[in-house]
Amino acid sequence: MKIELAKDYGFCFGVKQAIKKAEKIRDAATIGPLIHNNEEINRLNVNFNVKTLENIHELKDEKKAIIRTHGITKQDLQELKQKDIEIYDATCPFVKKPQNICETVSKEGYEVVIFGDENHPEVKGVKSYVSTKSYVILDEKELDNVKLPNKIALVSQTTKKVQKFMQIANYLMLRVKEVRVFNTICDATFKNQEAIEELSKRSDVVIVVGGKNSSNTKQLFLIAKNNCEDSYLIENEKELKKEWFEGKKHCGVSAGASTPDWIINKVIEKIEKI
Amino acid sequence: MKIELAKDYGFCFGVKQAIKKAEKIRDAATIGPLIHNNEEINRLNVNFNVKTLENIHELKDEKKAIIRTHGITKQDLQELKQKDIEIYDATCPFVKKPQNICETVSKEGYEVVIFGDENHPEVKGVKSYVSTKSYVILDEKELDNVKLPNKIALVSQTTKKVQKFMQIANYLMLRVKEVRVFNTICDATFKNQEAIEELSKRSDVVIVVGGKNSSNTKQLFLIAKNNCEDSYLIENEKELKKEWFEGKKHCGVSAGASTPDWIINKVIEKIEKI
Repeated sequence: MKIELAKDYGFCFGVKQAIKKAEKIRDAATIGPLIHNNEEINRLNVNFNVKTLENIHELKDEKKAIIRTHGITKQDLQELKQKDIEIYDATCPFVKKPQNICETVSKEGYEVVIFGDENHPEVKGVKSYVSTKSYVILDEKELDNVKLPNKIALVSQTTKKVQKFMQIANYLMLRVKEVRVFNTICDATFKNQEAIEELSKRSDVVIVVGGKNSSNTKQLFLIAKNNCEDSYLIENEKELKKEWFEGKKHCGVSAGASTPDWIINKVIEKIEKI
Repeated sequence: MKIELAKDYGFCFGVKQAIKKAEKIRDAATIGPLIHNNEEINRLNVNFNVKTLENIHELKDEKKAIIRTHGITKQDLQELKQKDIEIYDATCPFVKKPQNICETVSKEGYEVVIFGDENHPEVKGVKSYVSTKSYVILDEKELDNVKLPNKIALVSQTTKKVQKFMQIANYLMLRVKEVRVFNTICDATFKNQEAIEELSKRSDVVIVVGGKNSSNTKQLFLIAKNNCEDSYLIENEKELKKEWFEGKKHCGVSAGASTPDWIINKVIEKIEKI
């Protein structure tokens, strides 16, 4: 069986930068997981004493706080600044963009449609910068019964699918006079998506490696599944099952933006043995 | 044979308003045809002494100038204001919108993509209000080799097809960080298009009545032709041919936004006789 890695996969710029920062800062706490990958979070805890808190209220005698890649809300940031603690910002620059856009356009009077999961920390953070009204949606139909204003801005969670983003933009174009479309889907996400789209069409089994709470990993998995029925999402090599590969000729492999190379390598080694 | 008029067709608000104005003003000259319908232009000339000039330089001893529904360029308007002549503005309010948008957004630093025919008077007028850079296109591919700036505004000639407009918007979304999409396609155009789309699917012959220089009429004709091979574009009843209707069971009829009812009625009477 041939094993082929997608042309683009795994760690993005924002994640790489955040991990490098955390390793350098050491002995710190992050508010929520730094990235959506449990294995890597454990490694940072064990090797660099970077622990993960649930929320800002769990901070006690910590000296250093690291803001996670997905960012935090404007309110949490303000609260954090009032504490006696050093703040290190590891918010991905691609997540900062929709935060800044939301702040600017709502000052200019635009209401904002955010394409994303309302429970995702990135979206909670981005939304907190809207001072007018915001609508967090996953599908344009959610706006069917909403009375929209004449002008609106549209941003996206950085890890969403661009096709759906365009559908939402098209829907808005027919309903409001001005739509300011900010394509804030990050390039790494986009490239990883294109690569798995292509590879999964040529594979008879696909393994996507990444956190099950990772939005971009889930997108990769859905794209693969759409092209290749035998696609599987795993967090580490232990989850691999022998029977997945029986009679298969071509195994495609990809990984989410928060999946480190050391985990991907372990997965590939294990597949090779099978 | 059943003859069926499209649910929406013919005269739009801007055209109705302009004709009413011209009839009231009388003894005047328009810079270019007031609307794109030769029959109606002749009627205004014969009955109300409203004549049509080619351009602003043909003005001599006229006392009253009427600005056509499609608008004129900013430069022509300035020149006109310096002449000793009364100016009556019959620019369609839906055409004023993209003019105003172009003026505002280019002051804010946006370059502007205009979806339209560069030789159409409406587009020449709209374009003249852009003080940055403008790109007049009919297809997104025309931008393939253009280095676009980070932020861009998109407007449309009022009579274009909304599907293509969305295609262009989608293309831009993938290429630039911010696209301000102004859907300036007028509602009447949109409704007439939807109605002929629906009717032409159910017809075995379609007659579209309107000026052959009329952009919106041509769009209606193209939509009809796409659904019903035996579709014809005519300016008046004299162009109808007997053989078009031989063996046909269902004749759909529509008319452009600048086609007056009296012409449509004559066409229908003639078809009934055939």
